[in-house]
Amino acid sequence: IVELAADGGKHPDTISTLTGDPISMPVQLSGERHELEAVRLLAPVIPRSKVVGVGRNYAAHAAELGNEVPEVPLLFFKPNTSVIGPDEPIIYPEPVHEMAYEGELALVIGRICRDVPAERVDEVIFGYTVANDVTARDLQKTDGQWARAKGYDTFCPLGPWITTHQSVAEMGDVMITTTVDGEQRQHGSTSLMLRDITELVVYISSFTTLLPGDVILTGTPAGVGELLPGHEVAVSVDGIGTLTNTVIRK
Amino acid sequence: IVELAADGGKHPDTISTLTGDPISMPVQLSGERHELEAVRLLAPVIPRSKVVGVGRNYAAHAAELGNEVPEVPLLFFKPNTSVIGPDEPIIYPEPVHEMAYEGELALVIGRICRDVPAERVDEVIFGYTVANDVTARDLQKTDGQWARAKGYDTFCPLGPWITTHQSVAEMGDVMITTTVDGEQRQHGSTSLMLRDITELVVYISSFTTLLPGDVILTGTPAGVGELLPGHEVAVSVDGIGTLTNTVIRK
Repeated sequence: IVELAADGGKHPDTISTLTGDPISMPVQLSGERHELEAVRLLAPVIPRSKVVGVGRNYAAHAAELGNEVPEVPLLFFKPNTSVIGPDEPIIYPEPVHEMAYEGELALVIGRICRDVPAERVDEVIFGYTVANDVTARDLQKTDGQWARAKGYDTFCPLGPWITTHQSVAEMGDVMITTTVDGEQRQHGSTSLMLRDITELVVYISSFTTLLPGDVILTGTPAGVGELLPGHEVAVSVDGIGTLTNTVIRK
Repeated sequence: IVELAADGGKHPDTISTLTGDPISMPVQLSGERHELEAVRLLAPVIPRSKVVGVGRNYAAHAAELGNEVPEVPLLFFKPNTSVIGPDEPIIYPEPVHEMAYEGELALVIGRICRDVPAERVDEVIFGYTVANDVTARDLQKTDGQWARAKGYDTFCPLGPWITTHQSVAEMGDVMITTTVDGEQRQHGSTSLMLRDITELVVYISSFTTLLPGDVILTGTPAGVGELLPGHEVAVSVDGIGTLTNTVIRK
């Protein structure tokens, strides 16, 4: 559990360790507490089953890549082996010639569910985190299916932590901001999603069972662009935090 | 461990139970033995990470659907929540109007690996099983990405067991046969794969880490066709066994 100074807690900017996995079982505080600066955070979740991505879920982003808005949500899977945590390096793969960041709000599922009705979406969401849906833009065009272009190891940074106190309604209008080497590239509200959080969970759970720890990436706003080796990319979502990663060649 | 009469073992058509998971740890025989007919087999593996599918890996199959042979292997992911075992029902989803069987040879990965060289592919394969890459043909055309068309719950029957004694070379020329209600629909050798087992493992592991229990579906030969509620579909791979499932409406 992370307590931030901004939250006005008793132990600002510290982390308390837990016993157990809060996504799937009751947990207890271990009693240990560390300064946030002194620890290395890992990815807050490695999905047991899947990361579901949503393509072209912001009109301005669809337009900037010359795409139509899809008639049904455009879904793809990223393997859990592509997940990394904050401050872990994104590896620029040798065969890739155009790699892009895509800053996104991510949902973390809290219960096994299928065919979730709209009014119960809040109940199945464990919390929210920040994602970077890293994409090999060149392979995305030439491969056809996006398994490789979006599935490379390290192409799914998640973090820095999962917030669990917000409602679906609250997360429906928060700003996503992406910077590269400190320069702002994306800055759009989640209110611009073509299919909002509720519609996405209803739709995705209409065909696939969601498991605790599964992650849904809700799409990226306008402003996507290139990542090069050496770049530091930071995605912030208001009310959650900032996910920072650096690009390296292996 | 299944002992078949055909193998000439001491205990024909029986199953011995194990303690532990043979894919990830040393195991011991529990001493229990049952008649194969008396037990219900589950899916022999639920991947911890991913099922990787390969599209259009047989020229005659690509041609029968009017597709070109892809320049690089055409890969997609099926979520582990789509996996079912032998004799479990394939559920015909309400929004689907054309559902198809695709009989395939499946590889089960035995070790964590990345960038596997061709000469070490045998070492990373735990064994072989039979798969039916069930596909909603209509949604596959209209959705663009295949996450939903190939990802529905129950769309990945695997089984009836994993064979562990064959080499990559041996599995490179075995017959895949699919029947629907007893009538033969597919009958093609794995020697007709455009990318063989070795090439697939080398290519897939060039971008994604494979984990013990991950499954690779190696593509389907010619003869795909429609499945309707009530149909019994059986996929056989020589040297492994037969995977049978019935289609139902929920």
